Amino acid sequence: MSFDYKIQFDEENKLKHFLNIELLTENHINEILALAKHFATEESNKFKDLEGKTIASLFFEPSTRTKTTFELASKRLSADFINIDILNSSTLKGESVLDMIKTLEAMSCDMFIVRHSISGTPHYIASEVGNTISIINAGDGTHSHPTQAMLDMYTIKKHKGGFKNLNVSIVGDILHSRVAKSIITSLKILGVNNINVIGPENLMPDNLKELKVSYHNSLEGGIDQADVVIMLRLQKERMHEALISIEDYYKNFGLTKNKIATAKKDVIVMHPGPINRGVEIDSDVADGPNSVILDQVTAGISVRMAIMSLVLKNKCFKK
Amino acid sequence: MSFDYKIQFDEENKLKHFLNIELLTENHINEILALAKHFATEESNKFKDLEGKTIASLFFEPSTRTKTTFELASKRLSADFINIDILNSSTLKGESVLDMIKTLEAMSCDMFIVRHSISGTPHYIASEVGNTISIINAGDGTHSHPTQAMLDMYTIKKHKGGFKNLNVSIVGDILHSRVAKSIITSLKILGVNNINVIGPENLMPDNLKELKVSYHNSLEGGIDQADVVIMLRLQKERMHEALISIEDYYKNFGLTKNKIATAKKDVIVMHPGPINRGVEIDSDVADGPNSVILDQVTAGISVRMAIMSLVLKNKCFKK
Amino acid sequence: MSFDYKIQFDEENKLKHFLNIELLTENHINEILALAKHFATEESNKFKDLEGKTIASLFFEPSTRTKTTFELASKRLSADFINIDILNSSTLKGESVLDMIKTLEAMSCDMFIVRHSISGTPHYIASEVGNTISIINAGDGTHSHPTQAMLDMYTIKKHKGGFKNLNVSIVGDILHSRVAKSIITSLKILGVNNINVIGPENLMPDNLKELKVSYHNSLEGGIDQADVVIMLRLQKERMHEALISIEDYYKNFGLTKNKIATAKKDVIVMHPGPINRGVEIDSDVADGPNSVILDQVTAGISVRMAIMSLVLKNKCFKK
Repeated sequence: MSFDYKIQFDEENKLKHFLNIELLTENHINEILALAKHFATEESNKFKDLEGKTIASLFFEPSTRTKTTFELASKRLSADFINIDILNSSTLKGESVLDMIKTLEAMSCDMFIVRHSISGTPHYIASEVGNTISIINAGDGTHSHPTQAMLDMYTIKKHKGGFKNLNVSIVGDILHSRVAKSIITSLKILGVNNINVIGPENLMPDNLKELKVSYHNSLEGGIDQADVVIMLRLQKERMHEALISIEDYYKNFGLTKNKIATAKKDVIVMHPGPINRGVEIDSDVADGPNSVILDQVTAGISVRMAIMSLVLKNKCFKK
Repeated sequence: MSFDYKIQFDEENKLKHFLNIELLTENHINEILALAKHFATEESNKFKDLEGKTIASLFFEPSTRTKTTFELASKRLSADFINIDILNSSTLKGESVLDMIKTLEAMSCDMFIVRHSISGTPHYIASEVGNTISIINAGDGTHSHPTQAMLDMYTIKKHKGGFKNLNVSIVGDILHSRVAKSIITSLKILGVNNINVIGPENLMPDNLKELKVSYHNSLEGGIDQADVVIMLRLQKERMHEALISIEDYYKNFGLTKNKIATAKKDVIVMHPGPINRGVEIDSDVADGPNSVILDQVTAGISVRMAIMSLVLKNKCFKK
Repeated sequence: MSFDYKIQFDEENKLKHFLNIELLTENHINEILALAKHFATEESNKFKDLEGKTIASLFFEPSTRTKTTFELASKRLSADFINIDILNSSTLKGESVLDMIKTLEAMSCDMFIVRHSISGTPHYIASEVGNTISIINAGDGTHSHPTQAMLDMYTIKKHKGGFKNLNVSIVGDILHSRVAKSIITSLKILGVNNINVIGPENLMPDNLKELKVSYHNSLEGGIDQADVVIMLRLQKERMHEALISIEDYYKNFGLTKNKIATAKKDVIVMHPGPINRGVEIDSDVADGPNSVILDQVTAGISVRMAIMSLVLKNKCFKK
C-alpha cells in the first residue's frame, strides 16, 4: 500500500482534504483543537459557518456512531447534509464508485465524508475529484481514521493539559487498527515519546522498532506508568490470527478494576466505542472514575465541526 | 409491570419528559391542547421555537406514520432532527440500548423520541439519562401511547367543543392496545364518565370494573348513545387469543354503514391508523361524513409540536 | 393506457402539478429553463423560495440519482424535505397507496415527488389529492419522465444556444423508455423537426410515423448529421424481447470513439445515467470531449428547483 500523503495540502500547506495524520504539523493539529474548543464552549449549538454548503456522506462500511456525529456536526454548522444510502441503493450497484463520485460532484456537493473497507479509497477519490470538492476520511480499511485520532487528542489535552512528557499505552489489535495507527502518528507529531503497545504478538505490526514504541505482551508492566490508556475494540473475527481464545484475551488484556488499580491514580481510560463490555473492558472501568469514554463521544462533534469548517474555508471555491 | 410515573415531572410538577398519561392533570392536558391549537392555526408552518436543539428518533419498532409526524413536527420547529436507523444499524447490534443512549446523550442531543416493543423502555431510559435530555414515549409495548391520546383529545375537543357529558365508545382489542389505555386515562382526567369498551371478551383487561368503563360484547348496544366511536386497529396475530375468526370479528365488531346508522347522527368516528378496510372498518364509514380520521393525522403534527416544545422549555438545560 | 393530461394545469393554464410533457407550451418550457438558469448562475446555493413548505419523496421504485437531486433541490430552496422510506416501511405494507397519500396530505405536505413502476400513478394521485398538494412525476413506468426531459432541454440549450434546425438522434430501447418519450415530446414542442431514433426494430414503438421521427437500425447513417446524440441506458432484462445479444447490441448500437468520429465535430453526447460503460457507450466517449453527461447531472438540480418553485408558486394554498 502506498498513498499520496501530499494530496491533502494546498500549495500553502493548508488542508484541502482531511485524509490521514501523516505529514500534519503540530500547527495543523493545534489549529483543529483550538477551533474545536471554540465550538464546544460556545453557548449555542448552531453556527452559520457552512450555510449554503452541501455535505454528502458516503459510507461503504456500516457505521452509526461516526456517521451520526458527522451528520450532527454538519447540521450544527448549517450545511445541507445528504446521506447516500449506498448499502440499500440499487441504482448504484451497477455503477462504479468513480461514476458515483463524479455524479455527486456534478451536483455541486462541497464535501464527501467517506468510509470504505479498502485502505486508500478516500485518497483515490481525492485524486480524482476536481478542485471544488473536499474529502474527509471517516475510516479506510486498516489504514487511517484521522478524525477519531483528532478527537482523541482533544480528549487527552482536555484532561492532561497538554502532551509533553505523557506516557500513553494502547491495548489491543494494533496490526489491524486504523484507530491505533492514526493515534500513534498524532502522538508522535505532538511530541509524545513514551508510547506502549500491548496485545497478542501476532496482532502487532512489523515496524514497532521503526515506530519507536515499546511492546508489552500483557497489561502488567504495560500500563503502570501510563497517564493515558487507550483500549481498542476487539474484533472477534481476528482472534484466530492471534492464536488466542477470547477467554485468554480477557485474562491477559481485558481491563479490569484490579488491573487499572495498578496504574497511576489519575490515569484516563479511553475507547473509540462501541465497547464490548466484559471482553476488552469491564463495566467497572468503562463506567468508572478514570473513564473518559463519553467525553470522547462529545469531542467527536466539535472536532469534526472544526475539521469540516477548516477544510472548507481553506478550499478555493469556484462555481 | 410497574413504572415510575413521577419521573416525567420536575419539582414544580412541570413536564420534563412525556412518558404516559397517568398523573397528568387537566391543566397539563389543556396546556398541550392550547399550544397545539396555536401551532395549527398560525399562518406559517415554520416556527423557531426549537432552533439549535437536536432531536433524535429511536424507533426500535417499525413505524411510518408516527415517525414521520415527529420528524415533520421537529423540522417545523426548526430543530435539527436525526433518525437513528436502529433496524438497519450493524454497529449498534453488539451494543446495549443503554450504551447507545449514553452515546447519543454525549453527542448533546436534547430529546429522544422512543418507540419500543417492551413496555416501560422509555421510562427506563428516562431514569438513566442525565438532566439535559427529555424523552418522549412514541409507544411502548402494550403500555402507553401518550402522544396518540393527546392528538385524539385534540380531535374530540375540536369536533365536540369539550369533554363534559360526552359518551365515548372504544372498539377492539382493549387488552393489548396501548392506544386504548392512554385514551381511557386521558378521558377520565378530562371528566368523561361514560366510556364503553366493545370487543371479544378475551381481549378485555381484568380491571374493567376498576376503570369504571362499561363492557359490551357487540357493537349493538355499545355505540347507540356514543358521541365518539374510536375504532382500534385489528392485530391479526392476536385473533387466536380471542378465539374468534376474522369473519366473526367483522360481523360482531366491524363498523359498517348500517351499524353507524344506529348511532347518534353527529357521532364522530376515529381510528389511529393505518386502517384495515373491510376488517375493523368499512370504507363507507372510514371515508364517510362521520369520519374524522384524517383530522387525527393533521392534529398529530401540531400536538406533537406542542408536547416537544413544552417539554424542552420546561427542562433546565445545563451544557 | 389513457391519462388525463389536463390535470396538471389550472384554469389559467399554469402548472399546478408536473406530470408529463404533453400539452405543455413552448412558453411553459421556456419559463422553466429561464428560472433554472437563474438558480444555476446565482453565486449562492441557498434560496428561501420554499421556506416553510414541506416536500415528501415517495419512491416506489429504487433510485439514487433522481432522488438525491430532488432532495438537494428541496434543501437549496429551504423547504423541509422528508423521505418516505416505502421499500423498508413495514407499517405501510398493509396500507393502500391512496391511504398513505391521504395521510401525508393530512400532515400538511405541500408537494409529493412520486416515482412508480406503474404508468400513470402520479396522475392518479394528482386526481385524488386536494387542492393544496402538488405532484411531481419523477418517472412512471414506461410512460413519462418529464423532469429528466427538462434537464436535457436545458443542457441542449446551454450547448447549442437554442433548438431551431437541430438534428437530434436518440439511441436505444425507445419502446420502453420513459426518458425517450418525454424527450421527443419536448423537442417537438420546441420546434425540433429532425429527430432520429436508432435501435433494434423490436424495441421501437408502433407510432413512429405518427411521431414523425426517422428510424435507423444502426448507428451508421443515424448520427452523421446529428447535433445531439442521446444514448439510453440498456435494460439488460429487455434484451430477450429485442432478439439480440448484448454483444450484437454493442456492435450495432454501442457508441464508440470510431463511431462518434463519423458525426459532426461539435456533436454533444448525452446519457441520463447511470451509464453501462462498454455496453451502450464506451468510456472514451462518455468521458470524451463531446460528452455533456455530467452537465446533465448539474442541470438536474437547478431544473428541478425551477419546476418545484414554479409549481408551488402557481398553486393556490388554502390552509
